[in-house]
Amino acid sequence: MSEQKIHIFDTTLRDGEQVPGCKLNTDEKVKLALKLEELGVDIIEAGFPISSPGDFQSVEEISKAVKNVTVCGLTRAVQKDIEVAADALKYAKLPRIHTGIGSSDNHIKYKFNTTRENIIERAEKAVKLARNLVPDVEFYAEDAGRADIIFLAQLIEAVIAAGATVVNIPDTTGFCLPHQYAEKISYLVNHVKGIEKAIISCHCHNDLGLATANSIAGAIAGARQIECTINGLGERAGNTSLEEVAMVIKKHAELGFNTNIDSTKLHAISRLVSDTMRMPVQPNKAIVGDNAFAHSSGIHQDGFLKEATTYEIIDPLEVGADISKIVLTARSGRSALAYRFKKLGHDFTRDEVDVLYDRFLIVADAKKEVNDEDLKKLAEELERA
Amino acid sequence: MSEQKIHIFDTTLRDGEQVPGCKLNTDEKVKLALKLEELGVDIIEAGFPISSPGDFQSVEEISKAVKNVTVCGLTRAVQKDIEVAADALKYAKLPRIHTGIGSSDNHIKYKFNTTRENIIERAEKAVKLARNLVPDVEFYAEDAGRADIIFLAQLIEAVIAAGATVVNIPDTTGFCLPHQYAEKISYLVNHVKGIEKAIISCHCHNDLGLATANSIAGAIAGARQIECTINGLGERAGNTSLEEVAMVIKKHAELGFNTNIDSTKLHAISRLVSDTMRMPVQPNKAIVGDNAFAHSSGIHQDGFLKEATTYEIIDPLEVGADISKIVLTARSGRSALAYRFKKLGHDFTRDEVDVLYDRFLIVADAKKEVNDEDLKKLAEELERA
Repeated sequence: MSEQKIHIFDTTLRDGEQVPGCKLNTDEKVKLALKLEELGVDIIEAGFPISSPGDFQSVEEISKAVKNVTVCGLTRAVQKDIEVAADALKYAKLPRIHTGIGSSDNHIKYKFNTTRENIIERAEKAVKLARNLVPDVEFYAEDAGRADIIFLAQLIEAVIAAGATVVNIPDTTGFCLPHQYAEKISYLVNHVKGIEKAIISCHCHNDLGLATANSIAGAIAGARQIECTINGLGERAGNTSLEEVAMVIKKHAELGFNTNIDSTKLHAISRLVSDTMRMPVQPNKAIVGDNAFAHSSGIHQDGFLKEATTYEIIDPLEVGADISKIVLTARSGRSALAYRFKKLGHDFTRDEVDVLYDRFLIVADAKKEVNDEDLKKLAEELERA
Repeated sequence: MSEQKIHIFDTTLRDGEQVPGCKLNTDEKVKLALKLEELGVDIIEAGFPISSPGDFQSVEEISKAVKNVTVCGLTRAVQKDIEVAADALKYAKLPRIHTGIGSSDNHIKYKFNTTRENIIERAEKAVKLARNLVPDVEFYAEDAGRADIIFLAQLIEAVIAAGATVVNIPDTTGFCLPHQYAEKISYLVNHVKGIEKAIISCHCHNDLGLATANSIAGAIAGARQIECTINGLGERAGNTSLEEVAMVIKKHAELGFNTNIDSTKLHAISRLVSDTMRMPVQPNKAIVGDNAFAHSSGIHQDGFLKEATTYEIIDPLEVGADISKIVLTARSGRSALAYRFKKLGHDFTRDEVDVLYDRFLIVADAKKEVNDEDLKKLAEELERA
């Protein structure tokens, strides 16, 4: 099998930005979109144009700003939504409309109070309208994770016949186990007439901590697009983490997949998104957490002796995270500080780190950037006291 | 198939506590151990007795303090380690020694500079010694995730013959994909003579964000113990999250598994561990993050109308996280504050939340607990300004 491209669909600026307290203004969104383009994502979901004038403007400005990346606008399966999205995307070189509707009986009954037949009709109509306005139309079958698989296949077949170029199978509630999500994708691959005309997309939520595994399982089963966000931001427990998906694909060559992601930019964009959205990344977050590569110190502490390769599957430089070069600022956490002290040979207790952290913040406020000399002084002061 | 018990082995106090800046004193460890017992874990890994007098004392005091839970001490496959561990465990009602050695060629060559044959000899000797001292001996085959599977099976067969009651198959570097980890467990189930005499344990690391999925895949393949930590703390990107494993098993009855975990205590113990170890939990952390159940607000913001069940697979009360009842204190994050303001009908921008957060901290410092009336006042002040 030749290598298969997995398209990376970033929804940090849409699903990620829906989080309470994370709303960005247009300038911030454009700045992040340009960084996402540099990172190498294939599609940027830039917003939900009908939801607010701000979202419309952001989609419009991102469409103007980026060059080689598809810009996507979210809609419901509603005529006005789709027309407004097409308008917001009018400057995009590669515009995509992302329209869709609920596909589980739960959503059909409680959210739409209608029938399966009516859902198919509305879906077809929305996709046809969107295809009249842009050449690239993605359809989402909301809550596909809990949908009846036979109905889901009918729905997907209908929207592909109506012109959908990408079909998104969201595990909206984050409920599926990896083998269950893979079975859904496999079923569609094997039962939907015309499935080869569309790219299947995974959109997984992390409510049970399984979003990355589900997305990879979906790709193994035949999906060729993964929807994700930087730092796994998004509704509730968030979406699939872009950085985890990119590194799974990079480190597991046996899967035969590749992406366009420049992994050396992952650490910097993680920090930028965290700072811009004020959403902290926990120290033990995979790939981008402060401690993600703090492997030698912890085990050293327990008396193990080893070589780097014995515990290291990712060189920190591969993700742009050379810990020793990370700048310590007033934004740095206690864990980064403790780790740096360890690198300098100081194994402080947690209470000592507390004291040092307060003093560190004073230095950081005064100096902006705290270097090893500053840290040594802080350590000496503490040890003298 | 009747329901299968999955044993929950908590290593928050050993693997979790190795993290730079997280070291606990004995009192703190005993307090957490008692909470872990209340939570319903089956085994507490209390420390690595030979590594320091503090670790020895902690294992000893936890052994005295808990009643119905197995207390486990870590060792290398080294006589002195094992004797010291047995001594530290002398007051435990249910003592377990956890001994082991590297099993991958990488570890055998670089860490031990020896041969596969010698590794088997040392493993057998360690297990036999441990079994002379305590009736319950777990063997870990370090770096099993990268070990040659045929050698791994020989090693496991040898240690079970030597008396191991539990065999731990660690994915030490967090490299495996779920189907790969499951294949390893399946191979052992099908090829190791005497495997039915031991419980197979999963110990997965989260370097690629797959620890929970790998652990569940291991259990589906036949493992009956999962090693995990509160909040997924641990080396580098951490261990498997106890709260995620517990809720996957609880919500996926079709797996036919159960645990002894009282899920309503998950939220409180997550906060306690985070506070005690000073390790923040990110808002989008599955199950225990501040935003894990903030589902209605984000989507409402985008104009969706829905019922709870359409987006909810876990009732927050199931994990003890009734968001509206969570006490806001000076320890609370910006996201918790933004979410509470939304519940009160205020959709503040991020910059407004920044301003409010600073004022909130002043109130929180003065009042300890901030209630809805305080929040309303803060909102009014801001809106008047």
